[in-house]
Amino acid sequence: MQKYPSSLLENAVNEFAKLPGVGRKTALRLVLHSLKRTPEEVRNFGQAIIDLREQVNYCKVCHNICDEEVCEICSDRNRQSSVICVVENIKEVMAIENTGQYKGLYHVLGGIISPMDGVGPRDLEINSLEERVNNGGISEVILALSTTMEGDTTNYYIYRKLSHTDVKVTVIARGVSIGDEIEYADEITLGRSIINRTIFSDSFKV
Amino acid sequence: MQKYPSSLLENAVNEFAKLPGVGRKTALRLVLHSLKRTPEEVRNFGQAIIDLREQVNYCKVCHNICDEEVCEICSDRNRQSSVICVVENIKEVMAIENTGQYKGLYHVLGGIISPMDGVGPRDLEINSLEERVNNGGISEVILALSTTMEGDTTNYYIYRKLSHTDVKVTVIARGVSIGDEIEYADEITLGRSIINRTIFSDSFKV
Repeated sequence: MQKYPSSLLENAVNEFAKLPGVGRKTALRLVLHSLKRTPEEVRNFGQAIIDLREQVNYCKVCHNICDEEVCEICSDRNRQSSVICVVENIKEVMAIENTGQYKGLYHVLGGIISPMDGVGPRDLEINSLEERVNNGGISEVILALSTTMEGDTTNYYIYRKLSHTDVKVTVIARGVSIGDEIEYADEITLGRSIINRTIFSDSFKV
Repeated sequence: MQKYPSSLLENAVNEFAKLPGVGRKTALRLVLHSLKRTPEEVRNFGQAIIDLREQVNYCKVCHNICDEEVCEICSDRNRQSSVICVVENIKEVMAIENTGQYKGLYHVLGGIISPMDGVGPRDLEINSLEERVNNGGISEVILALSTTMEGDTTNYYIYRKLSHTDVKVTVIARGVSIGDEIEYADEITLGRSIINRTIFSDSFKV
């Protein structure tokens, strides 16, 4: 066990080392860096994360992080409120927003079904999604989860949950990435991209 | 510019992105991770670094970080108080302490002379080192700085500063690392290790 010359230092290193992907050496480097900053800068840093955790608010419609009761996306009247894109986390909301290709709303599950990690359907915002759909006005639910076994399981679970409604359930296209060479694409992706081929003239549409 | 769904989130990401080696993507990952922790855990994290910065104390003898007026090493009567090892930072103190090979005291400069970064001799604890030596009772000063141009410059500067005293100024051995194969050692290191060869029977000594 590394011995630290000060208990305050040791405590700060221990706390930094709890961050994902941060080992004790990196933690020490980060902590020592902060000793070169002004006390005010360090206070701003520490307070920012405390404030976020204590005052964080989730949109009561889509469960995205937001400052108000309802997030900017959900309260934007120019968006297509009949389409819901189901994502795992707010990072995916940000990624899809960055594409500029989507004008509908979102539903943030807060994770995916993963028995290995002890995450079941009840730990996720699936019931509230069903409720949103049951409340009417929704024509399409787009599933945009990771292409993993957990993602596929969650997709299927949601699909079953919504099968009694007349909402169209779609899933984002899986296929060869743009810029990729066909010969290097893995066979599962390539196979899927052949099965899910689109009408050529449709591929111009934005 | 990435748009964040919440100003609290954006603020926290901005603060994390100021850490060295942390980009905005990593910052977002770290911040979102903290939303999965309890508010108390996050408060402990934020407070630990604020407390360190505001209450940090430096040993008035060697300038190492410590909890008391004088650090544990300087106040340890079992250590050899006539030998001072000059290091750049507290990381080097910890590294040397980990070897278990050194029983003397330290002097933490707080950096090395680096005109490129605007660090001159006055920004470092060099005068206080001279003072310690002038106060008497010191037989040897070991220079343990990095083998860089800045380290060499600082070594030479300290050497000149202490040249009027009768203190022995030594520098840690430069040579082929233990476990390294000779054929892969760089020529400067290998050359130095030949010039600074030691009497074979001395190399058993610990």
